[in-house]
Amino acid sequence: MGDTLNRLAILGSTGSIGQQTLEVVRALPDQFRVVGLAAGKNTDLLARQIHEFKPDFIYYSDKKALLPNTEYKLLSLEDIASHPQVDTVVIATSGKAGLIPTLAAVKAGKNIALANKESLVMAGEIITSEAKLNAARIMPIDSEHSAIWQCLIGETQPAARIILTASGGPFHGYLPAQLELVTVAQALKHPSWRMGKKVTIDSATLMNKGLEVIEAHWLFNMPIDNIRVLIHPQSIIHSMVEFIDGTVKAQLSYPDMRLPIQYALTYPERLPNPQLPRLDWRNIKDLTFEQPDFDIFPCLKLAIEAGKKGGTYSAVLCAADEVAVELFLSQQIKFIDIARLVEQTLTEHKAIVHPTLEEIIAADSWARQKVTRLVTGDIL
Amino acid sequence: MGDTLNRLAILGSTGSIGQQTLEVVRALPDQFRVVGLAAGKNTDLLARQIHEFKPDFIYYSDKKALLPNTEYKLLSLEDIASHPQVDTVVIATSGKAGLIPTLAAVKAGKNIALANKESLVMAGEIITSEAKLNAARIMPIDSEHSAIWQCLIGETQPAARIILTASGGPFHGYLPAQLELVTVAQALKHPSWRMGKKVTIDSATLMNKGLEVIEAHWLFNMPIDNIRVLIHPQSIIHSMVEFIDGTVKAQLSYPDMRLPIQYALTYPERLPNPQLPRLDWRNIKDLTFEQPDFDIFPCLKLAIEAGKKGGTYSAVLCAADEVAVELFLSQQIKFIDIARLVEQTLTEHKAIVHPTLEEIIAADSWARQKVTRLVTGDIL
Repeated sequence: MGDTLNRLAILGSTGSIGQQTLEVVRALPDQFRVVGLAAGKNTDLLARQIHEFKPDFIYYSDKKALLPNTEYKLLSLEDIASHPQVDTVVIATSGKAGLIPTLAAVKAGKNIALANKESLVMAGEIITSEAKLNAARIMPIDSEHSAIWQCLIGETQPAARIILTASGGPFHGYLPAQLELVTVAQALKHPSWRMGKKVTIDSATLMNKGLEVIEAHWLFNMPIDNIRVLIHPQSIIHSMVEFIDGTVKAQLSYPDMRLPIQYALTYPERLPNPQLPRLDWRNIKDLTFEQPDFDIFPCLKLAIEAGKKGGTYSAVLCAADEVAVELFLSQQIKFIDIARLVEQTLTEHKAIVHPTLEEIIAADSWARQKVTRLVTGDIL
Repeated sequence: MGDTLNRLAILGSTGSIGQQTLEVVRALPDQFRVVGLAAGKNTDLLARQIHEFKPDFIYYSDKKALLPNTEYKLLSLEDIASHPQVDTVVIATSGKAGLIPTLAAVKAGKNIALANKESLVMAGEIITSEAKLNAARIMPIDSEHSAIWQCLIGETQPAARIILTASGGPFHGYLPAQLELVTVAQALKHPSWRMGKKVTIDSATLMNKGLEVIEAHWLFNMPIDNIRVLIHPQSIIHSMVEFIDGTVKAQLSYPDMRLPIQYALTYPERLPNPQLPRLDWRNIKDLTFEQPDFDIFPCLKLAIEAGKKGGTYSAVLCAADEVAVELFLSQQIKFIDIARLVEQTLTEHKAIVHPTLEEIIAADSWARQKVTRLVTGDIL
């Protein structure tokens, strides 16, 4: 970086990834200037962030809230994501909300630190081709994709295979009968990662890992058949890459999102950050691995199949899952109903291959309505 | 490589690494031409290799043997290592014999695929500075150093720390009383690697790991205090690198020397080789890690201390170990005497800092005589 600060816009600044991004900024104050902040309804926290980081422009979705400071401009998410004063856009919103700003940032040729996996799952073909066209650099913040990216650095040839590791979530090793009784509180207790609610539930169903398979497919131009999921409960190896000579590289650390966030923001450099924990091999005795159980975690299978089929299937997968997770969080459906609802929605979907953005958004809307109808119509 | 074959000279072609190098050449016939072969006393095998690979020049140390073919020139090891028709010199000799040809190859600015660790341990300062001066590229063949090298590829900054893994050898977990009774046959049974006798015994005493610490120090310009040894009995992770942001990269494969050999010979490319085994994660359940026991394996401690002290200490370490291992293999001393002899020789050595090659060779001779005197004088 040298004298030039990396000017950041953080979309989703009050969420888990957004807050951890700001922790990295606090730890490395000479590297960054926060020029844009965007949040949803958590305007209390946003107000404190504005006070601390003094951004030039902000967005928040709660129109009734009145924020104190008047030194900033109110802009739309797209305008922030494509603003000429922004070098790097951190897309830390969860779910569908990330799609349009990601596209805006890609079209503006920005550096994009991408935590939102749904945008690539929904519109991977459009986003990656627009990124190429506009020389935008998409840098993954997901720990798994950051691991793959770091393993690929400096290699002159593409990978032969990707091994995505998964903690297995809070219900690793459960039997079907136990899954029937799972509560929201249990599903929100992730064994290794601190994350937002949506991604925590997706981690419990392994839908999150399925979305990551599709995300890896787009980020690294890797056929889905060459992406394997491996359960690794300790969450120390964050993913692996196998090369054509059979060698495998892995990236390891304690599970802490600040590490992939910082790497995306300082790439290609690495910077010392005393707040980031270092692996202590005196305490790491054992790294274990298991194959995923597709029968117990049907969401993983559904996602991989949707990814293979392509077209609007993965947008429908995302949308159906997003609504189903909301219904589970508000205790309107059971944990195991999430997979059932997603599966039924996918089954009834008439997919479009190589869809336009409009067709993707239409498929998304159709899927959301479909899930709602399936639940209110009590078809389950 | 394209149209241009990589012209190889293999010094130590009848040894374990030499034979495995030729297996790689057989598997990738479009990549290489073997222009030079050099062996010690195994002239039967050398004759078969000459018949198969038709090198332009050869060396063998058994002057009484008469090899059939007359199509090649007999040259010295140094002349082969520095020959204008050679692109890459594979230094696969074991022990002190690698030093002079390694220096010749370095001074001739060759690509050097280095399996011989003793040359760097004895004369690391001279070899690395000559390599820099003559733009020679030293590419490690040792699985651990190849792993470190592969993890460093593409990184813009030096590593913060190196974690050298070690299988622990055949006596991992032994008690002192058990080590007293160890036979040559037991010491030659390595749990994971097929290697020559010298390095197999060094693996049993962990001297090999100590030599690797010093080798890593020179190859990667890393202070010895920042190199840690970690016991990893499965020999799947071949070593790890920790970066300044705390991230760790590892290289993994089944233990098979052909992989690091091939990587050194095809770098920066990787090539598919159906003979190289691929990790099967359905069968890998568990990777375990332990701290090394310096009391049970004093050779590891002696090597690290010699490496820290520098100067001629590490040449003396190497020489004393080489003689002691020969004495053990010929059943003249016990297994535990290896460490005792090395320690006593180091204690009595008057070291020279920043030694010349002549001073290193003198220290080597002194140490060899010292060990012999210690044994024949029955001082132990």
